[in-house]
Amino acid sequence: MQFELTKDYIEELNTAVRDNIEAKVMELINGLHPVDIAEILEEQSTEEAKAFYFLLPEELGADALMELDEDTRERFLKEISSQDIAGKIINQLDSDDAADLIGELSEEKQDEVIGHLEDLEQASDIIDLLNYDEDTAGGLMAKELVKVMIDWDVATCIKEIRVQAEEVEKMYTVYVVDENNILQGRMSLKRLLLAPDKKKVKDIYNAELKLVKVDTPSDEVAQIMEKYDLVVIPVVDEIGRLLGRITIDDVVDVMKEEAEKDYQMASGISENVESSDSAWILTRARLPWLLIGLLGGILGARVIEAYEGEIQIHPEMAFFIPLIAAMAGNVGVQSSAIVVQGLANNSLGLDGLWKRLFKELLVGLINGIVLGVLIFAYNFFFSDSLTLSIIVSVSLIAVIVFAAIFGTLVPLMLDKYKIDPALATGPFITTVNDVFGLFLYLYIGYLMYAF
Amino acid sequence: MQFELTKDYIEELNTAVRDNIEAKVMELINGLHPVDIAEILEEQSTEEAKAFYFLLPEELGADALMELDEDTRERFLKEISSQDIAGKIINQLDSDDAADLIGELSEEKQDEVIGHLEDLEQASDIIDLLNYDEDTAGGLMAKELVKVMIDWDVATCIKEIRVQAEEVEKMYTVYVVDENNILQGRMSLKRLLLAPDKKKVKDIYNAELKLVKVDTPSDEVAQIMEKYDLVVIPVVDEIGRLLGRITIDDVVDVMKEEAEKDYQMASGISENVESSDSAWILTRARLPWLLIGLLGGILGARVIEAYEGEIQIHPEMAFFIPLIAAMAGNVGVQSSAIVVQGLANNSLGLDGLWKRLFKELLVGLINGIVLGVLIFAYNFFFSDSLTLSIIVSVSLIAVIVFAAIFGTLVPLMLDKYKIDPALATGPFITTVNDVFGLFLYLYIGYLMYAF
Repeated sequence: MQFELTKDYIEELNTAVRDNIEAKVMELINGLHPVDIAEILEEQSTEEAKAFYFLLPEELGADALMELDEDTRERFLKEISSQDIAGKIINQLDSDDAADLIGELSEEKQDEVIGHLEDLEQASDIIDLLNYDEDTAGGLMAKELVKVMIDWDVATCIKEIRVQAEEVEKMYTVYVVDENNILQGRMSLKRLLLAPDKKKVKDIYNAELKLVKVDTPSDEVAQIMEKYDLVVIPVVDEIGRLLGRITIDDVVDVMKEEAEKDYQMASGISENVESSDSAWILTRARLPWLLIGLLGGILGARVIEAYEGEIQIHPEMAFFIPLIAAMAGNVGVQSSAIVVQGLANNSLGLDGLWKRLFKELLVGLINGIVLGVLIFAYNFFFSDSLTLSIIVSVSLIAVIVFAAIFGTLVPLMLDKYKIDPALATGPFITTVNDVFGLFLYLYIGYLMYAF
Repeated sequence: MQFELTKDYIEELNTAVRDNIEAKVMELINGLHPVDIAEILEEQSTEEAKAFYFLLPEELGADALMELDEDTRERFLKEISSQDIAGKIINQLDSDDAADLIGELSEEKQDEVIGHLEDLEQASDIIDLLNYDEDTAGGLMAKELVKVMIDWDVATCIKEIRVQAEEVEKMYTVYVVDENNILQGRMSLKRLLLAPDKKKVKDIYNAELKLVKVDTPSDEVAQIMEKYDLVVIPVVDEIGRLLGRITIDDVVDVMKEEAEKDYQMASGISENVESSDSAWILTRARLPWLLIGLLGGILGARVIEAYEGEIQIHPEMAFFIPLIAAMAGNVGVQSSAIVVQGLANNSLGLDGLWKRLFKELLVGLINGIVLGVLIFAYNFFFSDSLTLSIIVSVSLIAVIVFAAIFGTLVPLMLDKYKIDPALATGPFITTVNDVFGLFLYLYIGYLMYAF
């Protein structure tokens, strides 16, 4: 059922495209979905992609373009004239996709493309949409929707819906508005099919309806749609006038991006990258956090240097430096990850800060004691120094408890001050915990050996 | 618009429930969605929740129950008699939710509840669904759907759809089947509304349709639906008979779980936990990876011990132990995270293993050289040993390159052998890289000082 892209397939296709054998190309792409076409375009050189693109049916091509990676699309559109963009791509797209695509062009090219648009209503919709911030409901919504007036009867409704539906690819919900376009509710198609012709909209419509304002941030839109299992949500302005609608497919992308961003932050990657990006982009995304790690390592070196004398007398102290640092890092990441995920899912519940920290203290203590006892047993049997055994175990427990509390506290604080709490996961928290853990360990060692 | 749960609200509600003032309870929950009711139930004690639940309208209560956390639902259902579960909950649910809920009960209670079901068709649907593995399309699908025969005309279709739609909450798509119930395609409601009454289904239906087999794994179902932006997908058996359909809301949950699982793995958490879980569950989820970390720390200690003599002569070697270990860990996590995410999104492209490793080598080299030069500059100015400066920089570059390649290779290998590649992220890769990095550093130090 699912299309499987292979190198052989791409080669066969490229040969057919190069030789301009349209029938062969059509045969090869028969039954493919825009997403599949996008996968092919990603694997082609810009030249090949361009030649292939202009052999495609316009609608399939335009839809495929919207499925491309943003970078690839930008690179591709640079090669296409403004006139072709307007006449062969934009005219095939819904207003939300059209606005997204135009928004990615240079200012100059934007004006050119809009100037070439023939459908003036579409042009004005696109200009409207370009004004909204792309991270808000306005930036996600499409203008295409089906709406009926609250005082119509069912027969009029069905007639009007037939007309409007010609323009809208997927209907989902029919919205009900009053004479000022103020959103009143919705009418399910099912209900409409079940109702007698003479019935009035106002007697059968459903006034209960989730909606978002045009300036609602897109992650909040995603949260609402996910929470309430919505397939589509209407967007209104300040006074409740119906402006557009957002469909679940756009929101799934937002959710996916959010989850990926958190995952990448936790893994120490600072930009949204993919394995297929160039080595240079991958390096750029990874270097910033490594620099923080380097700084942490230098701080760690300074801490150890301060105890150089101790280490010369008791070199066995050095053995457990990586253990302490690693445990501090691991515990901190675990704690912060749980908080960050709770914040992202809105599932933290009603517990206050103190109760949360107390629980984290408890978790840290249990983990610390279990691990402390284990490492004590190891040291007791395999090293001959009771003092060292005690130092390592006591430090380990202290470090784990500290890292657990610190890892919980930092993302909560960041969130309170409206900073993305995911910043607190990954290398940052690891590095701070590493350095502090080292200090704790060496200081405890210093005190113990001093007695 | 969105419901905001507060402690005051819960208290007011609990008081009303305790005093059994139904009118007050109804007023408080007026306009709430099942998800909101579920949030309330999560915050109540089992006693309070039970009393509150039986004041709710049956359908609202049953839907709220399906929105609960699995643990909370299980605890709650233990308190409810089999008769009430059958007569007040199951009869309000779609077959997929009903089967999920019954699947969570003990074997004995399952039989009791099914025995109490009055609707025999529902009972047989549920028994069918219980047979499917919950991680497959069969485990996700609902039996409720609307289908028409390929040789009907539009008027018959609309009449039949009216009848069938009474049973189905959301229609989405009307499926087209032949006389053997073999799925032929779909018919959009929009098309149906636009077509004249006498038109035959076979002339206007759409034969192109994505579908899944009943034994398709649920993560694959999620991938297909996300890739093709589907709101609903039909499920067929081996010979193509229509068995049920899966809607996007169930699949969003699967996607969310997958993303969370990967995130938790990368953060060193071994079970699916939430911040609101008990300290004991949180500890249990975190201890396994910490034990691996501990083992790594002990191995690290053995490695350093082997070079104890070196460290006694050159204690400054110890300063950079945390730096090397931390960088090895960070780079490994970055590399593996990118691969794991690429595998999860099916976005690795067509590059072969060697090309991928070569790119990783390049990324590692650039990062390594930048960081190596920086640490060399630092050491050159702040320490008086050129040898140490060289040792640290050379080791750092070697360690980063090794960690980058190792971090890429391991998840790819795991995936090849059908093991979840996410296992390779987080503490495992960090620990291996830590230990190996240490060894490399000390060995290079040993060689350099020996000359």
